Amino acid sequence: MDITSDTHSQHISKQFNHELEELKTHLMAMGGLVEKQVQDAIEALLEGDSRLAERVRDNDQAVNDMQLKIDEEATRVLARRQPAASDLRLVLAVIRATSDLERIGDEASKIARNALALVEAGRNARGFVEVRHISEHVRRMVRDALTAFARFDIELAVKVAQEDDTVDSEYTTAMRSLMTFMMEDPRSISSILSVMWILRALERIGDHADNLAEYVIYLVKGLDVRHTASDKLDDQVGKHKS
Amino acid sequence: MDITSDTHSQHISKQFNHELEELKTHLMAMGGLVEKQVQDAIEALLEGDSRLAERVRDNDQAVNDMQLKIDEEATRVLARRQPAASDLRLVLAVIRATSDLERIGDEASKIARNALALVEAGRNARGFVEVRHISEHVRRMVRDALTAFARFDIELAVKVAQEDDTVDSEYTTAMRSLMTFMMEDPRSISSILSVMWILRALERIGDHADNLAEYVIYLVKGLDVRHTASDKLDDQVGKHKS
Repeated sequence: MDITSDTHSQHISKQFNHELEELKTHLMAMGGLVEKQVQDAIEALLEGDSRLAERVRDNDQAVNDMQLKIDEEATRVLARRQPAASDLRLVLAVIRATSDLERIGDEASKIARNALALVEAGRNARGFVEVRHISEHVRRMVRDALTAFARFDIELAVKVAQEDDTVDSEYTTAMRSLMTFMMEDPRSISSILSVMWILRALERIGDHADNLAEYVIYLVKGLDVRHTASDKLDDQVGKHKS
Repeated sequence: MDITSDTHSQHISKQFNHELEELKTHLMAMGGLVEKQVQDAIEALLEGDSRLAERVRDNDQAVNDMQLKIDEEATRVLARRQPAASDLRLVLAVIRATSDLERIGDEASKIARNALALVEAGRNARGFVEVRHISEHVRRMVRDALTAFARFDIELAVKVAQEDDTVDSEYTTAMRSLMTFMMEDPRSISSILSVMWILRALERIGDHADNLAEYVIYLVKGLDVRHTASDKLDDQVGKHKS
């Protein structure tokens, strides 16, 4: 047995594991920033805080920069380490996840822009109760999806995917009642539209959290469940229990 | 020189090139299906053809299936061939592109669902002129982005990215005039909202075409321009002329 070469390959593999860990750590840092952006955007809206809204809007660049940096890092790992099996899945899941996180960042920045418009219009629009409720739900989904990613926690990931259906139905109900408000008071159309865009952004954030959860299932199980109905997830994941 | 091994490696490399070509061909087939979905969704809307709208909605599953299949194929190439440099960039660009094409498919299906709602409501809503105009613009962007991908055509890709700004401003103008219609005629609120969702879907399709164009620049130049303002693209791409 060639001890030198064995030590060498152990060294390589230690280095490689370190790079994979780093990749995950950077993804989590990006996730943390994006969570903060969503939280601040909603707070800016509900408190009518235009400075905070502006800060969210301006911070979007930092989210974008993180995506580019992490993707570059992931591509470097692919090129230099040529990972296979679960390592390859981890790197691909990270690349997919940065794309969803970046889009959650975009939605946060849309919420901030609409919050600014509402503060300027000086109207306390209808629908804030619904926004608060759905935003809490959606923020929990994002947090849980990131935790599931960090811990490779399949059960939590399945839970997130299933919650997305609840958010979708809350969203539909809220939109319907906003439309009724519009009809009753046409002068409020413009501000209610802003609230509708905000709800739409929240619903999209829920979809992205759902995507993140699906990547966790993919990376742990090697199972692509991106187009599996959430009520069939338990079955699918169960069948492939490792 | 070991002729056998050389022939062997030539064989491998021919096989590998074939796999990369196949990957591109399958992406183009997916692109073709998605283009058709957008075209049919708009036709269903403008002609009030509810059967066609239902077909678009039901076809979305085929788009999703293609994404899963191509992503699996791309992952297999990564695992078995461990590509580097421009080959690696091609595979990564394909993985990113299927995600955008799948989302364009989703938007087409949203347009179809809103078209169905409008046909049921039996109202010829305002804003059809704007929808037709923007949809032509956006469809051209998708077509050009796919052509740019197929031909590795940087100039065409830069053109697509720059057109996205025009679409965004057409979208903003159209939304503003729809809001005015709503205020003038509150009974039309529900149908105008449907048209607004359709415009929003078209604007999103433009964003995805823009993303596709950016992947072309990435794969040809090795340059990630995803968060570069389109008026600075010429500069950036020019600097890196190969």
